[in-house]
Amino acid sequence: MSDSTWQIVEERFDPQQQAHHETIFTIGNGYLGTRGAFEEFTPGEKRATFVHGVFDDAPIIFTELANFPDWLELEIWANGQRFDLNQGEVLHYRRWLDLRTGLLTRQVRWRTPQGLVLQLCFERFASLDDPHLAIVRLKVTPENGEAEIELHAGLNGEADNEGLKHWHWVTQQQQQQSSVLTLRTRTNKLEVSMGMHLHLHSPGPYAHQAWDVRNHPTLVGRAALKPGQTLTAEKVVAIATQRETPDPHALVLSKLNALARPAWPMLWQAQRTAWEKTWQQCDVQIEGDDEAQLAIRFNLFQLLIAAPANDERVSIGAKTLSGYGYRGHVFWDTEIFMLPFFSCTRPDLARNLLSYRYHSLPGARRKANANGWRGAQYPWESAATGDEVTPTWVPHFNDPKQMVRIWTGDIEIHISADVAYAIWQYVRISNDQRFLLERGAEIILETARFWAERAEWNETHQRYEYRDVIGPDEYHDHVDNNAYTNYLARWNLNLGLQLANWLEQEHPQEGQALLQRLALTMDERQHWQKVAEALYCPLNPETRLVEQFAGYFERRAVDLAALEPRTRSVQALLGIEGANETQVLKQPDVLMLMYLLPELFDEETRRANYAYYTPRTDHTYGSSLGPAIQAILACRMGSMEEAWEHFQRAARADLHDVRGNAGDGIHGASAGGLWQAVVFGFGGLHLTEAGWAATPRLPKHWQRLRFTVQWHGQPQTFDLTPEGAS
Amino acid sequence: MSDSTWQIVEERFDPQQQAHHETIFTIGNGYLGTRGAFEEFTPGEKRATFVHGVFDDAPIIFTELANFPDWLELEIWANGQRFDLNQGEVLHYRRWLDLRTGLLTRQVRWRTPQGLVLQLCFERFASLDDPHLAIVRLKVTPENGEAEIELHAGLNGEADNEGLKHWHWVTQQQQQQSSVLTLRTRTNKLEVSMGMHLHLHSPGPYAHQAWDVRNHPTLVGRAALKPGQTLTAEKVVAIATQRETPDPHALVLSKLNALARPAWPMLWQAQRTAWEKTWQQCDVQIEGDDEAQLAIRFNLFQLLIAAPANDERVSIGAKTLSGYGYRGHVFWDTEIFMLPFFSCTRPDLARNLLSYRYHSLPGARRKANANGWRGAQYPWESAATGDEVTPTWVPHFNDPKQMVRIWTGDIEIHISADVAYAIWQYVRISNDQRFLLERGAEIILETARFWAERAEWNETHQRYEYRDVIGPDEYHDHVDNNAYTNYLARWNLNLGLQLANWLEQEHPQEGQALLQRLALTMDERQHWQKVAEALYCPLNPETRLVEQFAGYFERRAVDLAALEPRTRSVQALLGIEGANETQVLKQPDVLMLMYLLPELFDEETRRANYAYYTPRTDHTYGSSLGPAIQAILACRMGSMEEAWEHFQRAARADLHDVRGNAGDGIHGASAGGLWQAVVFGFGGLHLTEAGWAATPRLPKHWQRLRFTVQWHGQPQTFDLTPEGAS
Repeated sequence: MSDSTWQIVEERFDPQQQAHHETIFTIGNGYLGTRGAFEEFTPGEKRATFVHGVFDDAPIIFTELANFPDWLELEIWANGQRFDLNQGEVLHYRRWLDLRTGLLTRQVRWRTPQGLVLQLCFERFASLDDPHLAIVRLKVTPENGEAEIELHAGLNGEADNEGLKHWHWVTQQQQQQSSVLTLRTRTNKLEVSMGMHLHLHSPGPYAHQAWDVRNHPTLVGRAALKPGQTLTAEKVVAIATQRETPDPHALVLSKLNALARPAWPMLWQAQRTAWEKTWQQCDVQIEGDDEAQLAIRFNLFQLLIAAPANDERVSIGAKTLSGYGYRGHVFWDTEIFMLPFFSCTRPDLARNLLSYRYHSLPGARRKANANGWRGAQYPWESAATGDEVTPTWVPHFNDPKQMVRIWTGDIEIHISADVAYAIWQYVRISNDQRFLLERGAEIILETARFWAERAEWNETHQRYEYRDVIGPDEYHDHVDNNAYTNYLARWNLNLGLQLANWLEQEHPQEGQALLQRLALTMDERQHWQKVAEALYCPLNPETRLVEQFAGYFERRAVDLAALEPRTRSVQALLGIEGANETQVLKQPDVLMLMYLLPELFDEETRRANYAYYTPRTDHTYGSSLGPAIQAILACRMGSMEEAWEHFQRAARADLHDVRGNAGDGIHGASAGGLWQAVVFGFGGLHLTEAGWAATPRLPKHWQRLRFTVQWHGQPQTFDLTPEGAS
Repeated sequence: MSDSTWQIVEERFDPQQQAHHETIFTIGNGYLGTRGAFEEFTPGEKRATFVHGVFDDAPIIFTELANFPDWLELEIWANGQRFDLNQGEVLHYRRWLDLRTGLLTRQVRWRTPQGLVLQLCFERFASLDDPHLAIVRLKVTPENGEAEIELHAGLNGEADNEGLKHWHWVTQQQQQQSSVLTLRTRTNKLEVSMGMHLHLHSPGPYAHQAWDVRNHPTLVGRAALKPGQTLTAEKVVAIATQRETPDPHALVLSKLNALARPAWPMLWQAQRTAWEKTWQQCDVQIEGDDEAQLAIRFNLFQLLIAAPANDERVSIGAKTLSGYGYRGHVFWDTEIFMLPFFSCTRPDLARNLLSYRYHSLPGARRKANANGWRGAQYPWESAATGDEVTPTWVPHFNDPKQMVRIWTGDIEIHISADVAYAIWQYVRISNDQRFLLERGAEIILETARFWAERAEWNETHQRYEYRDVIGPDEYHDHVDNNAYTNYLARWNLNLGLQLANWLEQEHPQEGQALLQRLALTMDERQHWQKVAEALYCPLNPETRLVEQFAGYFERRAVDLAALEPRTRSVQALLGIEGANETQVLKQPDVLMLMYLLPELFDEETRRANYAYYTPRTDHTYGSSLGPAIQAILACRMGSMEEAWEHFQRAARADLHDVRGNAGDGIHGASAGGLWQAVVFGFGGLHLTEAGWAATPRLPKHWQRLRFTVQWHGQPQTFDLTPEGAS
């Protein structure tokens, strides 16, 4: 298998692409994510490391993942000249991320302003084997003269989130070759420690020094090199927080002290082994399309480095751990877009992600309760506690003196059903009855309860309704009877009823105990039944159309083709109110509904709605969640050219920055959607009573599609070719 | 004269008082202000330096003075133990600010956890002679053992404004004993440089080292001391910004290079001379009341260190340069409360402060224009450009998910007349006809024009009105015909008319040119005349009462005594809406009006309104602007006991932190008001055609009150005793 399908390569440093490339060169290990800023400070950088669960308060956005103290810093001086790509002359530059091992390498040949030519090779990875460890290795070789090399390896506590600081210094210890820095978040008072050890290897004389600058302990290495001689330095770093241990300082010390010197060989061996195992479970192989092959691996890599392997109290934010976008907040993106990949390939990770929703049930109950309802109302945006953290007011984009009210946190309620859906999907795939019994059932029952409470009786039409909501298509807010919401709510209510029965019958002791703890009476279950039966779930028997929400059909139609070419969303072009008055969709709610609950709609209905809603959707600049799912739906309609177009849009979302905002971080939902597009779309994978089955519809030029999915704890490998499935 | 009336003394370090004492131990020189944080980092500190005019954008508050890179840092290590008041044992502690010289001294006797006893003496001042220079000197003496002393003198670029960072690193240079650090503000792109030189003097061996840590260059000094030996270190710092020079780095270097080593003796001599001259002009001497004597000097010191001597494009913010409160924004506080002191004692500073309003005329015109009017509408809060920077929305104190609309920036319009008033007062005192002609007249004409445009005709009552405004009493907003506003507006209009005549008659060339440039026609002047004559300025001929605004008399009366004891404002107790519905005043608008324009009201009227409004005012926790003025009014009523009570409240505002918010910075208006209370209140100073005259009403225990004021460029000294004026 050629490297080109495993490596993301950058051939030159382009300051215009700096933020975008920092995102795509993010490394991580499910505990931390570190953007691909350089080891040396570079103007314009958005240097950041995020550690799962380390949130701190912030104005307007309430809470955000705190940019961690910087562990990466390694500055180089050659004969008194600081290494800086904006100075001197770059004779050669190449950077690549090896997806197979998580290794980021940068090779530079650089001439100082004084004429000394240096070869530099930087390598870094975050250990997948021990998530508390990360390492950077540097090799420096002067070509054409003697060089006094000075290295500054720092732990920099002055990290900020685009200007906002979240840290107070607590203490630091400095020795000749190692430092430990301890800080505390400003509002949440969470203590974290970070330690480093600097190891040098050089053929000539070299020396160490320690600069004990407060909040920025720095280890200095100096070496005198003759032309052709190479100095090798490794900076190995250990990181811990009070989320894992009451004494992060001690944990950091023990991690550092347990390492060999140099540490690289052992850590690197463990890294390769860990990733090899991971890819055995998760890789998707596409023959005949290297771009698609690389794209799927890149997107899976991004999901895998963001997925918590050892922590069930965190989840993956909309932008993973790779950027400031959405501030680490968790949306339905995780459950509906990313989770299928994990449920199918890494049920251990899926279980952690869903357990986060179990541990944040108290927050969901507080939210329901504050609105006057019982049950669990999951927050539209969720962080450390499960309380709602969607911004309520944000400054207007064009006029900071005006504030814009954000309503999603109030009324985009479908998230509660989405969580239940993901649990159910995970349980169907994994058959993890224990999880269902101990955690999942409580979520499903409590969300069902919320749906029953939230429903409003319409006396005129003799039906239950959900009024004043926002569906997945956020171009239309404050709508009544959003079809996606209503259908999913009904599904959630029915599932709750089934589960209550199942608990009583299959797990009389534990089940009964849960029902009692939740005080779920037969009366209440009958009420759920009544709401589910009388809930308005629109479907026009003649046209077969499901109206997205009450009155959608009367909104103004817009010829989207007439707006082309454009580089902005329809909402940006027409304004929030303007878009709201049209039929243009950010993403097609109704089609998403039919994707998630296909059993409820016959072929004719699916086709009718696909034909109706597809041309009304802003596929290019609407939701980044849309294209991958649209590709699947197109596959199912047999529209393979359209499917390919949407697939490409998703595949390129971050690699080609097609929306211009990849600098804010990876589009996690698009990454998860891409896997679904390949496996459920082109692969035609679907679940049967006997396990997975495939009905492939491969793009013409694909010679082979190969992937493994789990069912009831057993792997099933699909090796698909244009001629059919094997 | 005893030192006790010149020195603010702190006898122990109390972390509970940390922020408050940092405020009152602020040093400065009219260019920069540095809060009294310690040289060594201390948890809980609000370390800050502000430099006039160095604003940068911020969310919600739009712009703020950027906390400058820290010049003060000087960390001390003794035998490996970092000096820290929270470690070891403090055997002796005394800190004092000498107001006569601006010198802040701290003496500490400290035992390390290992038992070594050190004597430490820190001294610092910001040079009044050369505003670009500041210096800190340290003496360390071990008492009971040998000591390896290590000093870390840093320039720390990682300054933030309570979490928000305003700086990008640009470059730094490091030499053995000196460093220069250059940064740039994030949004305004203003470059600043700061340089330091570290000089050591020690009887034994000592050494220098330079740690070139990015954004935190640190000079290290090491010395070995025997018991009783003293190491003396001085860190002298130069600061410059692109507001003064295109090349701040060069200016900093030239300043540093011009200094002797050590620099202290020469700088200290110049400092004493500069302050001696200042106090000759500005001191107020009170015999028989050391507390009042110290208080007035403290408050004048705070005004003097905030007043720009060399810059006419900045003004003094509500909290001077001493804290984060109001973010450096400039209010009417400057013109109405602080300016009289400067106009009377330092007309050069008054001229600079008023010139700020001249240079910010474009912002005031933009504001008027955006509202559809011509002329100059000064912003309620003003910063670098003169555009309105009052926050429009702020998070609710108790619920950050709610936003509160702040209306002062929209409708607290009296500021435009206040600016005109201060100009006219300055000109009357100084006779600075040139300023009036070149700058003041334009402001007065343009504000008059604004008032004519803003007035609304009431057909029913056949009068002009100002509707929907906020007066100085901010407990009542969205009111019509606020008396303070209307009377001041009429005064402004009349002054504009007089000035227009004066320009034509006295300065036919320049005056005519100005009128033409402003396109001020006879028609428009006639319209001003009409507005001034028909403007509604309420006064009930029977009761002699001026109603604060339309409908005030119908608001609910509150027995303020019944709310005692309380520790919060009436608005905090009743809520914004609750207070609005009552007659309780944050400050008494109508009395303020009669203070500013006494010639418009006869004795009977003044007495009637004083008697009516005084008991309706929240004197304790209402506006900090109130007590000093209330003291003057009480003097004029002959209520000396009341006057004394209000005076004490103002005198203690910051020294005793009577409102609990002195940590946010000095109450500049209260400081200026205090001078007015002493001079205009107890001293009974008033302006006549022939200059100043005094009608003293001294507090009983005052044996003497002595001060000097300027009139038409000449000093007049008043030496008042209880028997009468001399």
